[in-house]
Amino acid sequence: MGTKVLTLDTMNPHVKAMEYAVRGPIVTRANEIEAELKTGKSKKPFTRVVKANIGDCHATGQKPNTFIRRLVALCTLPDPLMNDPGIPVDCKERAKRVLAACRGQSTGSYTDSPGISIIREDIAKYIHERDGYPSNPSDIIMTTGASDGIKVILNMLMTGQSGKSERAGIMIPVPQYPLYSATLTEYNAHAIHYYLDESKGWALDMSELRKSLEEAKPHCRPRAICVINPGNPTGQVLSEENIKDIIKFAKEENLFILADEVYQHNVYAKGCQFHSFKKVLMQMGPDYSHMELASFMSASKGFMGECGFRGAYCEVINLDPGVRKTLMKSITARLCPPVLGQVVMEAIVNPPRPGEPSYEKFQFEKNEVLTQLAEKAKLVTETFNSIEGISCNEVQGAMYCFPRLHLPEKMLEAAKEKNMLPDAFYCFEMLEKTGICTVPGSGFGQREGTHHFRITILPPVEELKEVMQKFKEFHLKFLAEYK
Amino acid sequence: MGTKVLTLDTMNPHVKAMEYAVRGPIVTRANEIEAELKTGKSKKPFTRVVKANIGDCHATGQKPNTFIRRLVALCTLPDPLMNDPGIPVDCKERAKRVLAACRGQSTGSYTDSPGISIIREDIAKYIHERDGYPSNPSDIIMTTGASDGIKVILNMLMTGQSGKSERAGIMIPVPQYPLYSATLTEYNAHAIHYYLDESKGWALDMSELRKSLEEAKPHCRPRAICVINPGNPTGQVLSEENIKDIIKFAKEENLFILADEVYQHNVYAKGCQFHSFKKVLMQMGPDYSHMELASFMSASKGFMGECGFRGAYCEVINLDPGVRKTLMKSITARLCPPVLGQVVMEAIVNPPRPGEPSYEKFQFEKNEVLTQLAEKAKLVTETFNSIEGISCNEVQGAMYCFPRLHLPEKMLEAAKEKNMLPDAFYCFEMLEKTGICTVPGSGFGQREGTHHFRITILPPVEELKEVMQKFKEFHLKFLAEYK
Repeated sequence: MGTKVLTLDTMNPHVKAMEYAVRGPIVTRANEIEAELKTGKSKKPFTRVVKANIGDCHATGQKPNTFIRRLVALCTLPDPLMNDPGIPVDCKERAKRVLAACRGQSTGSYTDSPGISIIREDIAKYIHERDGYPSNPSDIIMTTGASDGIKVILNMLMTGQSGKSERAGIMIPVPQYPLYSATLTEYNAHAIHYYLDESKGWALDMSELRKSLEEAKPHCRPRAICVINPGNPTGQVLSEENIKDIIKFAKEENLFILADEVYQHNVYAKGCQFHSFKKVLMQMGPDYSHMELASFMSASKGFMGECGFRGAYCEVINLDPGVRKTLMKSITARLCPPVLGQVVMEAIVNPPRPGEPSYEKFQFEKNEVLTQLAEKAKLVTETFNSIEGISCNEVQGAMYCFPRLHLPEKMLEAAKEKNMLPDAFYCFEMLEKTGICTVPGSGFGQREGTHHFRITILPPVEELKEVMQKFKEFHLKFLAEYK
Repeated sequence: MGTKVLTLDTMNPHVKAMEYAVRGPIVTRANEIEAELKTGKSKKPFTRVVKANIGDCHATGQKPNTFIRRLVALCTLPDPLMNDPGIPVDCKERAKRVLAACRGQSTGSYTDSPGISIIREDIAKYIHERDGYPSNPSDIIMTTGASDGIKVILNMLMTGQSGKSERAGIMIPVPQYPLYSATLTEYNAHAIHYYLDESKGWALDMSELRKSLEEAKPHCRPRAICVINPGNPTGQVLSEENIKDIIKFAKEENLFILADEVYQHNVYAKGCQFHSFKKVLMQMGPDYSHMELASFMSASKGFMGECGFRGAYCEVINLDPGVRKTLMKSITARLCPPVLGQVVMEAIVNPPRPGEPSYEKFQFEKNEVLTQLAEKAKLVTETFNSIEGISCNEVQGAMYCFPRLHLPEKMLEAAKEKNMLPDAFYCFEMLEKTGICTVPGSGFGQREGTHHFRITILPPVEELKEVMQKFKEFHLKFLAEYK
């Protein structure tokens, strides 16, 4: 047979070390159970698996937004759809405008590497409307999902050095969305973990930021701070005050800011409002408004949930002109992000306006999704807090709840005996007993000795109620077993 | 203003060093000229720029394949298109099958990271039909364009070491498609350049492979050899014999093979045939059939030219089980490739069959594109070879011609005075005088002292004839000027 060129010992150790909990072993097991249920191979006390592990809106039953899909279909098959009397004229006008901006009038041709110019212009207008501060279309880079954009910006921030004290240090929250830890592992960078303050609704605590950075300084060259707002997996919406403090901290420490703002449409709690880092930076005046900031937005979340299109953009402001030119050059080898993902983004940032034929339906569908998400956020928060042995912060935004488990000692021992982390033990049991697939908190990081899990709030209201009821029964039984 | 976190001195030096000639400075200039022509700002002896720098089929006038686009539109907007009497029933059946395999029946949900199972199965069937050897669907990874797949595989082959003698060494052809050099620069790997033999129709010469590898051994850890077949930018189609020799060489030297086979549908020359590396490997029997090989295929080339959809796949065979598992894990953080790109790939690998309503039209459109490309390949080869000071190998396949320029001494001196490479000087002059945008050979690499450029054969036949005529006039005048 001969020797393999690549073995676990010789392959890229940084690729080998990557972990991405959202699609980790528990999801593999959930898929197995799904298959077993289909074939009738195994008997389970449930008839289907509820995939509450991933923010995959349409998979959980959300219907696509009609305007978005019509625009995509028109841009794909203009002949004969431009003549379809069932599609409103404003949608057709949009499609014509996009096609006119595509080379050869086809969405099958490459676009410029940062995306189609007119869509970048519309994104800039959207940001201007949102923040009240102008945005420059040439600061906009469209990407293949926000993950791709985050990787491009993080890559630029690497030092190119692998020495333990010369590597780039990137501050990331704990808990965090595991794309960050996976990417930093792949890039051989130093992850500077700062803990979110669970006792203060997962806010960022300045003394914690300072402490984590000081501790990391001997081990890396700190370059950037990543903030996820609204939070994933934690569901908090940062206050303007908190954002100001973070910006001040970044300035003091000369850090590049990466603001993951993909859930900017997903704000539910009363009194909460989305404030972009860009807006706050600008409001803070000339001492701050020159700071380097990358903000990420996606077509996969919000009210649209079009994950499969991989549409996203990143606004990068205040880059050194040489760096900016180099960044733009470096993305040319990637050719371009998927064109229909760009088209989806166009529909999001430039929705139908009042008076246009598509307006009412668009607004109705958008509001329906967001209203139901708000209802579900409330339902989930309240239910968890009503159950013994569980506490959780309010789901103010995003699509997840990250409840804390107060587990009995006996259960911790049982997990240890099975050589499993307590939260993983708990989530696997939940999956086997109820069919509910969640992600153990350890996949996102959590304070030593605390245990959580992440569950999405995406299933339809009635189904979610059932899920919560089933969960409650499981949890109480499980607790009783180990008491 | 404060100091920037990122400057050219502090940014990732490997990102800074990346170059991608296909979208290099000459394209920037071409875009400027295009804008100037629109505004009437500058007077030029031509009315439009011909973008012959990039293999962007639809941009150059090729019409999308109807079956592909109908399938995509159906998968995007099933209601009401499933009831559209203008779309044939077989296409609708396909769409139903794809949608049934999408979570929530929506192309807006995430798929598994390597792509939708049934499409991976269809890809495996396509490969089986093509080669006569079975393919395992779980060896198929769908990616965001072939570039993405190539980067994933190359990444896995890195050593994770940055020391000059510990870095991964990857053999790449010269001339090569600059994605390879750009990626190796980004990954801080050692590019082992092997020269293609221009005097033998750009074949791979075994003594050259050996020589380049031996010279590189002290400077890196050789891991893999990349071969592009049909060739880009060189247009050759490798003989079975040549592929056998390459495989033997890879075995002797314990190299992983990356076969860039994205132009597998683009073979024009009489007596030429596409042989996949997989097929030849299998034919060579048990001494070779266990070798590690990754083969890349794209929706962007062939007869479809759907570049904007970023549809592609990679078949990776004979991986060590641990490595394979790790590879599959590492791609989960990327979530999934664009779903509609996957749908395009489904239409390509599983085209309408004889007797199905969409069959005739599909075949007609496919043949028309390929017949015209064959005609253009011949036209371009013959024209270049009929012009003084130019010689070129037959364009046997792919979409490009890479003619050699025999430039007068005086012109070389003039280029030197302008501080430009002779081929860049030549191509910029061509652009300014004729509006034809090509890529200087130096962007792909070429033997010291030789000069080439790459031109696509994509413009419609009549337009291409004009282009060649204009080129000839420019060339002869230019030659006369420096004689």
